[in-house]
Amino acid sequence: MSALEKLTAFYASQKEAELPESALAIMRLCLLDWLIVSRAASGDAVAESALTYARSQGQGDATLFFGGTAPPRIAALANGTVSHALDYDDTHFAHIGHVSTVVIPAALAMGQARGASFERILRAALMGAEAATRTGIWLGRDHYQIGFHQTATAGAIGAAVAASVAAGLPDARAALTNAAGFAAGLKAQFGTPMKPVNAGMAAANGVEAVLMAEAGLFGSENALEALNATHHGEANMRGFDGIGEAWLFEQVTHKFHPCCHGTHAAIEAMMAGLQQRAGAPDHVQITTHPRWMSVCNKPTPSDHLEAKFSYKALAALLMQNGGQGIDDAALKGLFPMSKDTEALMARIDVVADESISEEATQVALTWGGETKTFEHNLTAPLPFETRLQKLLSKGDAALGQGDAARFWSAIEAGDLPALLTEVTK
Amino acid sequence: MSALEKLTAFYASQKEAELPESALAIMRLCLLDWLIVSRAASGDAVAESALTYARSQGQGDATLFFGGTAPPRIAALANGTVSHALDYDDTHFAHIGHVSTVVIPAALAMGQARGASFERILRAALMGAEAATRTGIWLGRDHYQIGFHQTATAGAIGAAVAASVAAGLPDARAALTNAAGFAAGLKAQFGTPMKPVNAGMAAANGVEAVLMAEAGLFGSENALEALNATHHGEANMRGFDGIGEAWLFEQVTHKFHPCCHGTHAAIEAMMAGLQQRAGAPDHVQITTHPRWMSVCNKPTPSDHLEAKFSYKALAALLMQNGGQGIDDAALKGLFPMSKDTEALMARIDVVADESISEEATQVALTWGGETKTFEHNLTAPLPFETRLQKLLSKGDAALGQGDAARFWSAIEAGDLPALLTEVTK
Repeated sequence: MSALEKLTAFYASQKEAELPESALAIMRLCLLDWLIVSRAASGDAVAESALTYARSQGQGDATLFFGGTAPPRIAALANGTVSHALDYDDTHFAHIGHVSTVVIPAALAMGQARGASFERILRAALMGAEAATRTGIWLGRDHYQIGFHQTATAGAIGAAVAASVAAGLPDARAALTNAAGFAAGLKAQFGTPMKPVNAGMAAANGVEAVLMAEAGLFGSENALEALNATHHGEANMRGFDGIGEAWLFEQVTHKFHPCCHGTHAAIEAMMAGLQQRAGAPDHVQITTHPRWMSVCNKPTPSDHLEAKFSYKALAALLMQNGGQGIDDAALKGLFPMSKDTEALMARIDVVADESISEEATQVALTWGGETKTFEHNLTAPLPFETRLQKLLSKGDAALGQGDAARFWSAIEAGDLPALLTEVTK
Repeated sequence: MSALEKLTAFYASQKEAELPESALAIMRLCLLDWLIVSRAASGDAVAESALTYARSQGQGDATLFFGGTAPPRIAALANGTVSHALDYDDTHFAHIGHVSTVVIPAALAMGQARGASFERILRAALMGAEAATRTGIWLGRDHYQIGFHQTATAGAIGAAVAASVAAGLPDARAALTNAAGFAAGLKAQFGTPMKPVNAGMAAANGVEAVLMAEAGLFGSENALEALNATHHGEANMRGFDGIGEAWLFEQVTHKFHPCCHGTHAAIEAMMAGLQQRAGAPDHVQITTHPRWMSVCNKPTPSDHLEAKFSYKALAALLMQNGGQGIDDAALKGLFPMSKDTEALMARIDVVADESISEEATQVALTWGGETKTFEHNLTAPLPFETRLQKLLSKGDAALGQGDAARFWSAIEAGDLPALLTEVTK
């Protein structure tokens, strides 16, 4: 059975089925987080540029962040770019990419254009997220390592599923064959405005794949499988094992700190340790997977943006504030760097260890000769209520008190007009 | 010097320079051919679907084929799809793709949106065509063989240059870094409606790369070079040798027959031979490059569409009409196939020979024991006037008497309103 057959069968079986409450609940949290990180991007230069472009393309049936409307493809493009602009949105480690920033804009734009209900849009986002996750695993690590960005490529497939559900297509086959041919997006764009556009582009490609399918256009039954040759896909069919029964999307992780996701397990482990005992440790050893060493081990960051990729700077900040957490104001406060911070950073060693999982980090804190070890794994399940509270706190820190609680009320109530009001604000 | 540097330098040096008349003249012929093959696609199902989609996306500053307007990206998408719908548009063998069907829609849509003159649009199309051709050579045969469609991938780069010229951008750097990240399009789509969409998508990607650049978005300086790893590019820097001095685009070839380009050299050689002596030969041997054997050597075509990929059926038709040429009516007339046609096809052998160039075919015609050999190479230069007359005849056959002559008058006069009238008709 091909990837195309797996995805079309998933679509057929789930498009009207009762979806598991556990997965729906996580998607509601993702919707909350997506609104928080998007609204937090207000005024961001890349977000503003994407919206400037969108607003020049004519009005339409779909809402743009911070006001205005556009045709659904353009809205998906701009809103997807906005929600990835701060790189503060959710990550799925098995998919090797960001999920909600692609599938929610696609589901919302197409859903709005077709008068879909909140429930239909939530279903669309969830099915799209699951399809993106499965496709990301199927394309595999090789696809990522050579230079593709799964967020964009597998994302387009997920967005096509999301938009198909939102539009109520009887089947997703044509849309999937179209989206396969659109799949693009490079890791080379990291560090430039095109990085967030990769997310918007994937959302737009999914929407356009559906609009074209509705107009009678379709691609080859072999187009998706062709990506294994053209796009260095691994053809890991295990990516589709149990699709429609197990919802791998549920392992999505949210960022609770405004810095590189590779540092988050270390931050959580540090916070757990530092909250147990007063005073900064004499020595800290951070043990992480080797893949992160080139990404988030900047030994001497020169500003708060680089500090987001520096285990040492982040750990030193936590040592200063007693493990209370990381926020942008505190990161900015590290610069110009004081002698005290430098002295704390000098107490920290960062060590790579192949045997630790990519999603986990271990920290060994030594106070007066006594060493205690703390480990955190980002994929360890968090109770729903804990996750929700952490997201509400994230919202309060990023937006001001009360905004996130209001978003959550709209989501819990399934109140689409209220949700859209928050988007356009 | 990277591909990006080569292309940005080309842009800077040529965007206001006096361009060679020989290259401009060929681009005028391409514009004529582009109008002919697009207008001939009126009523084609794929063309109609693309236009249906475009017309649903709101009105705008750019003209759609057969009436209506759209924002420039959508117009480029639809018009590019229309002009490739019949697969009757021009081909550049070194680029390994179709050129005008991508760069003309991009140049025209963006030019219209910005009130550009005919001369500026012609310059945009020519510079875009040259950039696409060079980029296609740079990506090379490996890129094509693994499954990418240069028309779409290198096409997007050419379309970005075309749209940049049409919009009057001071430099093309940001647009090129954006377009590199959008580059997509699969050979797997051949034989489906997405094949023509590959051309439209490339045109649209080039236009959107420019619109986004104007809004302040840009990608990495390394994005274009990254395609060598991600997209199996060969990094043939010889593709850029002499760019801006030699115009490799001039080697573009037009289809004078409504069938697979791989059969055209055989058709020309057959026509030359058959016009020299009355009566069908007793035996015909067609010698062609091995790469065409899997493409256009269908031994027993079942309808006129398959006959377009059948050396034997095409040669038999020419034997019947004394080498007068191929048209759709005659191809349809071959079916259901008569005993006479089958008998003629049985006299024909098709032989592969590595030593013949891909653009050439040799035919050996035997009448009563006497064999005469005729060879045609599609890249052999045709005098301008011959090329023009062949295109006007193609237009008369495809559209009816007089249409192509009227197109040519508008092009010769540089009369943009008259040209746009022909597009919207």
